[in-house]
Amino acid sequence: ANPIFANLPTTIFEEMSGLARELGAVNLGQGFPDDPGPEAIRQKAADAVLNGYNQYPPMVGLPELRQAVAGHYARTQGLELDWGSEVTVTSGATEALASAFFALIEPGDEVIVFQPVYDAYLPLIRRAGGAPRLVRLEPPHWRFTRAMLEAAFTPRTRYVVLNNPINPAGVVLPEEDLALLAEFCVAHDVVAICDEVWEQVVFGQARHRPLMAFPGMRERTVKVGSAGKMFGLTGWKVGFLMAAPKLSHALARAHQFLTFTTPPNLQAAVAWGLANSEAWFRDMPRALERSRDRLGEGLRREGFSVLPTQGTYFLNVDLKASGVDMADRDFALHAVKTAGVASIPVSALYEEEPVTSILRLCFSKRDETLDAGIERLAKAR
Amino acid sequence: ANPIFANLPTTIFEEMSGLARELGAVNLGQGFPDDPGPEAIRQKAADAVLNGYNQYPPMVGLPELRQAVAGHYARTQGLELDWGSEVTVTSGATEALASAFFALIEPGDEVIVFQPVYDAYLPLIRRAGGAPRLVRLEPPHWRFTRAMLEAAFTPRTRYVVLNNPINPAGVVLPEEDLALLAEFCVAHDVVAICDEVWEQVVFGQARHRPLMAFPGMRERTVKVGSAGKMFGLTGWKVGFLMAAPKLSHALARAHQFLTFTTPPNLQAAVAWGLANSEAWFRDMPRALERSRDRLGEGLRREGFSVLPTQGTYFLNVDLKASGVDMADRDFALHAVKTAGVASIPVSALYEEEPVTSILRLCFSKRDETLDAGIERLAKAR
Ligand SMILES: CSCCC(=O)C(=O)O
Ligand SMILES: CSCCC(=O)C(=O)O
Repeated sequence: ANPIFANLPTTIFEEMSGLARELGAVNLGQGFPDDPGPEAIRQKAADAVLNGYNQYPPMVGLPELRQAVAGHYARTQGLELDWGSEVTVTSGATEALASAFFALIEPGDEVIVFQPVYDAYLPLIRRAGGAPRLVRLEPPHWRFTRAMLEAAFTPRTRYVVLNNPINPAGVVLPEEDLALLAEFCVAHDVVAICDEVWEQVVFGQARHRPLMAFPGMRERTVKVGSAGKMFGLTGWKVGFLMAAPKLSHALARAHQFLTFTTPPNLQAAVAWGLANSEAWFRDMPRALERSRDRLGEGLRREGFSVLPTQGTYFLNVDLKASGVDMADRDFALHAVKTAGVASIPVSALYEEEPVTSILRLCFSKRDETLDAGIERLAKAR
Repeated sequence: ANPIFANLPTTIFEEMSGLARELGAVNLGQGFPDDPGPEAIRQKAADAVLNGYNQYPPMVGLPELRQAVAGHYARTQGLELDWGSEVTVTSGATEALASAFFALIEPGDEVIVFQPVYDAYLPLIRRAGGAPRLVRLEPPHWRFTRAMLEAAFTPRTRYVVLNNPINPAGVVLPEEDLALLAEFCVAHDVVAICDEVWEQVVFGQARHRPLMAFPGMRERTVKVGSAGKMFGLTGWKVGFLMAAPKLSHALARAHQFLTFTTPPNLQAAVAWGLANSEAWFRDMPRALERSRDRLGEGLRREGFSVLPTQGTYFLNVDLKASGVDMADRDFALHAVKTAGVASIPVSALYEEEPVTSILRLCFSKRDETLDAGIERLAKAR
């Protein structure tokens, strides 16, 4: 077996969800809601399965979905995407990222990656032939600086991968940080691969701005979106790749070879969802914000030190500042095994010099789940 | 962009289906049924979407589906698979193949491939770092010989990819050919990657034997299956990877990085289908055999020379023997544009020394579709 993939352990998300299933623990680890998801969209999927088309759809996606995607980003982010030449539907955002890396990276290309990082990025980049260069972000602000970018960009830099809103940090990057990164991309003729799957899950005064909208970035950005995250249906695995036509041509070829196509019944339901999403995209973040606050307040009451969250499903606890004298991974294993609550140790998402005191908790859960999680975490200290 | 994927054209299947959609042609090109597929299974999928689980399932697949897969292959092919350590659910057979290639191939590994070949194999093998060695099969028998294998296997051979039943050939390889290939794999310490997606679509006296069942092959075979092909629901994109635990570990990592997981609602329906498939797997091939014969007889009546088909959805016409004085690709484009019927020119599935006189036609269609196809092909000559 090729060592790049084979030598790696199971992802921390599966490891913790597996333990949660096995031990019957409250699962505040992997990011998914514990409610059934929007009923109207699920009804459309059921209709499509029963009465609609269940054979190979067009390889790059149903026209109705690609149109709906373009319409959605025009309305919500002011992006003008040509659905016919700039939108590819993928089997989830992971496949979108894999397609982007395998389509674009050539052997030896340097790829800038910010850590902590979703643990698929680095193996995919390496398997595609790229050489990752890591920029290390730290709590509590998790922001990069001009000096960090100056140290990371070299003449061999060809790509930068940005996840924004940032998982696990819960940060929505401000305009000035994005402008800074765009400035570097343009100056170094670098393409940005932007994992913006959390773009709809943003709270309070925070505003998500797509990197593609910054000066000079329209032709040099690959944008990744996720219906699973937008609609809280994480198992559906319907993702989007958006880029200028020249990039999109290469992305579509990779998609063709990695999965070929994506279930048309789920695509049809997502198309309907995007075209009828106004109330959902207004109410969903508000409900999640209440859940974030319920978890945060409960944890603070129990003496935990909680970091701020502007977006994503995740809230971070600083264990050290909470007076917990264990490394995050030890505490996470201890908590799931002895107190019955699963979480994600953020150190697992660093490859170098891990920050070892941050525990990520998922709050896209019912109140009872959150309350049980709080109680169990308190017991675990 | 990396040239391995980016420099390739859209697959012939999408090219012809795209032309068929655009021109409103009868589509006998890409392999999919034009009926809705088994209603009971679709009903289960609708139930799962409405009342079941729509969030991340276990990364390697729902336990109930992995158990059903193991049960299916025990009943139908006498294989004893441990569902817990030997079965991975993928987002279609294309992803299963991609996962196998990226998991296993190391730079410079030689990979034996028989052509004609599904046009994803070679780009994936090359992108994974492998060096394909082609074995050329020819109509009308499309069989390999000991001499061909002797010429293909070298000390650097690490993998052989076998599609059986063979698409586009329509051949189900006999026991002796499989035994011969197994003998070479064992002697050269080579792993076989077996794309057996057509294993349930076999007619008359022909019998499909999995290469994994041959002496010495149990530990050195990766078997790929497809629920889409089994149940005539090609858009569902639920595939299976089966291999001994050591290989499966590497395969699961690749699956984790390429798509992470597969929609649980469709997985649940396929699990039910496999556990309740006796009548379907008895009746489906009989119905397809009638369609094969209807298309074959109709074409013969119109003066076409038709090759035998023992399995798959496909029947081949020998254009030259039919007195058609055009290369297959020219005829296919002529037929879709002037007569309104799409087909697949088999030359597109050769990389070297293409056979240019074979036209592949898909017969998994309603009688009216087949009759219209026959009439239009007759007009195109
Ligand atoms: C694909 S599971 C990991 C991604 C996610 O949702 C998470 O961070 O929990
Ligand atoms: C994934 S489309 C190509 C595979 C197939 O079914 C065909 O040969 O038509």
